[in-house]
Amino acid sequence: VIKSDLSGIFDPKSVAVVGVSSKGPGPQFGGADFVDALLSCGFKGNIYPINPKGGEVLGLKVYPSLRDISGPVDYVICCIAAPQVPQLVEDCAAKSVKGIQIYTGGFSESGTEEGKRLEQEIAALVSQNGIRVIGPNCVGIYCPRTGLAFLPDFPSDTGPVAIISQSGGNSFYIVREGAKRGIRFSKVISYGNACDVNESDLLEFLADDKDTKLIGAYVEGVKDGRRFVRVLEEAAKAKPVIVLKGGIGEAGARAVASHTGALVGSDEAWDGLLRQLGAIRAYSLEELIDMAVTFYYLPSVLGRKVSVVGGGGGSSVLSTDDCTNAGLIVPRFPVAIQDKLKGYMEKGSIGVILSNPVDLSDQGWGALDDCIKTILGYEGIDLAILQFGAGSIPRSDVLKAIGASFVDTLVEISRESTKPVVIVVHSLISDDSWWVATEVERRCGEVGIPFYHSLRNAARAISRFLDYHERNSRWNL
Amino acid sequence: VIKSDLSGIFDPKSVAVVGVSSKGPGPQFGGADFVDALLSCGFKGNIYPINPKGGEVLGLKVYPSLRDISGPVDYVICCIAAPQVPQLVEDCAAKSVKGIQIYTGGFSESGTEEGKRLEQEIAALVSQNGIRVIGPNCVGIYCPRTGLAFLPDFPSDTGPVAIISQSGGNSFYIVREGAKRGIRFSKVISYGNACDVNESDLLEFLADDKDTKLIGAYVEGVKDGRRFVRVLEEAAKAKPVIVLKGGIGEAGARAVASHTGALVGSDEAWDGLLRQLGAIRAYSLEELIDMAVTFYYLPSVLGRKVSVVGGGGGSSVLSTDDCTNAGLIVPRFPVAIQDKLKGYMEKGSIGVILSNPVDLSDQGWGALDDCIKTILGYEGIDLAILQFGAGSIPRSDVLKAIGASFVDTLVEISRESTKPVVIVVHSLISDDSWWVATEVERRCGEVGIPFYHSLRNAARAISRFLDYHERNSRWNL
Repeated sequence: VIKSDLSGIFDPKSVAVVGVSSKGPGPQFGGADFVDALLSCGFKGNIYPINPKGGEVLGLKVYPSLRDISGPVDYVICCIAAPQVPQLVEDCAAKSVKGIQIYTGGFSESGTEEGKRLEQEIAALVSQNGIRVIGPNCVGIYCPRTGLAFLPDFPSDTGPVAIISQSGGNSFYIVREGAKRGIRFSKVISYGNACDVNESDLLEFLADDKDTKLIGAYVEGVKDGRRFVRVLEEAAKAKPVIVLKGGIGEAGARAVASHTGALVGSDEAWDGLLRQLGAIRAYSLEELIDMAVTFYYLPSVLGRKVSVVGGGGGSSVLSTDDCTNAGLIVPRFPVAIQDKLKGYMEKGSIGVILSNPVDLSDQGWGALDDCIKTILGYEGIDLAILQFGAGSIPRSDVLKAIGASFVDTLVEISRESTKPVVIVVHSLISDDSWWVATEVERRCGEVGIPFYHSLRNAARAISRFLDYHERNSRWNL
Repeated sequence: VIKSDLSGIFDPKSVAVVGVSSKGPGPQFGGADFVDALLSCGFKGNIYPINPKGGEVLGLKVYPSLRDISGPVDYVICCIAAPQVPQLVEDCAAKSVKGIQIYTGGFSESGTEEGKRLEQEIAALVSQNGIRVIGPNCVGIYCPRTGLAFLPDFPSDTGPVAIISQSGGNSFYIVREGAKRGIRFSKVISYGNACDVNESDLLEFLADDKDTKLIGAYVEGVKDGRRFVRVLEEAAKAKPVIVLKGGIGEAGARAVASHTGALVGSDEAWDGLLRQLGAIRAYSLEELIDMAVTFYYLPSVLGRKVSVVGGGGGSSVLSTDDCTNAGLIVPRFPVAIQDKLKGYMEKGSIGVILSNPVDLSDQGWGALDDCIKTILGYEGIDLAILQFGAGSIPRSDVLKAIGASFVDTLVEISRESTKPVVIVVHSLISDDSWWVATEVERRCGEVGIPFYHSLRNAARAISRFLDYHERNSRWNL
């Protein structure tokens, strides 16, 4: 039997969610939450909640079983207990369902013989009838173009970033944090135990997917090493692929085995492999997102000479160190530029640093706009990093004013500048600082400016982004 | 002239703040903010705001000049413009003031000849009359025992941690973030350009200070390298000393020169020096605080075997990796312990991991308390790390419930356990997640449990803490 390709599972015209509590969503995540997510994300086709008791949930009629649905069902989200799943797969085959996402856990990852047997039984059933299965033990697919989603707070608009994640929780965080920073997604797939559709299938599909320009992957282990290497190499040639490998050493491997039942390789092997194949290895979930943000916004032709602008003095010193340590260059401004900056400061301003880094301290914020324009206008600078440590600002009213001037300035910059600016708000200590950081982050997302939570992480992500493009441009010679 | 020792500057009976705006505190930080901080921190002696116009500020009478104060003045906070400072120093000498903190900037750090000359003039003046000067270009002293403070939101109760910081902004952040996590301070000194009292004076004093059990230092450069080495070695023998060095490479040195006028050494030289002297080098402000939290709460006799407890699966895998990478051990639980944990789970719970890491997923939170007790009761574990990634929790109501069960459990643990527990709440993405993290952090501070914002940082700080004690116990053989 030749397996059907994957495009069908992203484009269902109708979805049945099997195992929907009549109480509606939550508190424990389950079927009704999937229905909620489909509705919130604007799924256009029919949604059929299923529960033997019938009734209604979230304004939709609940069907007693798959057989009771008169129209076709393309896609099934399975939230019933593991022992009942093989029967459901047979019902799906009878109904000509194209894809099943099995949320249910308790299969091979449980370590029990019964769990392993059930998973094998499902894999054998679907290999006979061409149904594609995502999971089991996963939250499935988010595809805003068609309105498939697994959390109601996901954006309903689409974008060029695809994510594959062996962990549901990690995919929640990646989408939410990415979305806050303005990233939009083509397809996000949480694929769990991968009894049918696995990481290689997904990478192969996404490498060719015209809606996808960048791939991020959280992988705990691979089913078929040789195929994975071949597929990853092709994908990394087609577009940037950022890989976070979970499960290091004996303890990590044990955690992975209990989590998704995957087999892991050594850390060093992964390091060498990813480098050789031209993929980018991320070493934390934060770095995966920071790298995605960087690739999303920054132009591939970019130099390493940065200006660090913000406050106060200690933050400026440490931020400059972070840039230097990451491999960026913080060049000294010529006297003419320093004099021009000085002209913008309030009369008698002291405690400001103008040679690069530029520390505006308490006093120069009113001139942020003029300063940034002058800095970006200087030919010796490729990129400006605006930063402030909220916890270092003495007063909350000043903190809020700085936040507001950041937002005004960034809107202005996004209209006018040909050179990129990135923004870092760090060292949050109070509700006000959270609020300011969130507001700046939101506006950055709206106008298309990369936002980071730490200068060290920003500098590292930008430098690794430059490394990637420098290497690729060498290859292209 | 033999300089008077430093104890006097921490124990003034009266403080004059020179240069207090009649408009009261803010928006730009200045004299009235120092008055506000002294009042808020409960300074017991007389506070004399000074402004030639007189009037009243924050309910206190404003004096036109130092000479107009009839009683003695022990300590002066100087917030007037740089050119007027030498005259003020002479007035202070006439009034037998013991210490002056010069907030004013525009001295050597400005790079101007005039600024350097003024700073030298002040240094020469005070060396003749025994007054000790903190600064210029600094926010001075926080000493809750006597009520000296430079921000009104600092705690008014005292504790064993001392901080010296060449940056005012960094000292703001260290105290605020430390205080949120329950740290209390003996003395915090922001010392700026250090024209009189410098890093070596302060380290020497704090090494002998009976109220101080741990010293943290943010240092940009040193005035007298040989003395610093001698003093640091003695201090590090007396108590743990954690040093964050700001100003790496040419750009960092330039930033430092403009910030505090200090001369820096090479990064490698600092690395070698600190290791040799038995001090602990922190590589970021976050690490300085994380190390301080770790030393503050954890017992010096502690092993490396940890249990990672929390949710969900992906977080558990990555958290285990973070522990392993940091040099901690995450041992597999014996079957008997796993079975005991399983007994606490809701009937039919799936998707939980019980072999260590322990992933309670959505379903095991109700049993957190029993699980932690069982884990801490197991002889193969030295320490439990409770963690959850807020952004990976599907629903806000569940997030809040998990936060609440963390708080209940940690109060319980703090009463009963003989083995330490640390808590990490990470991956904040929403206002609710900020709220939960802040609430858990606050309660941890109240009951004395170390709280961290990232598992990687927690694991690294704990491992470096263990390194320190292992090395010191070897020395003690």
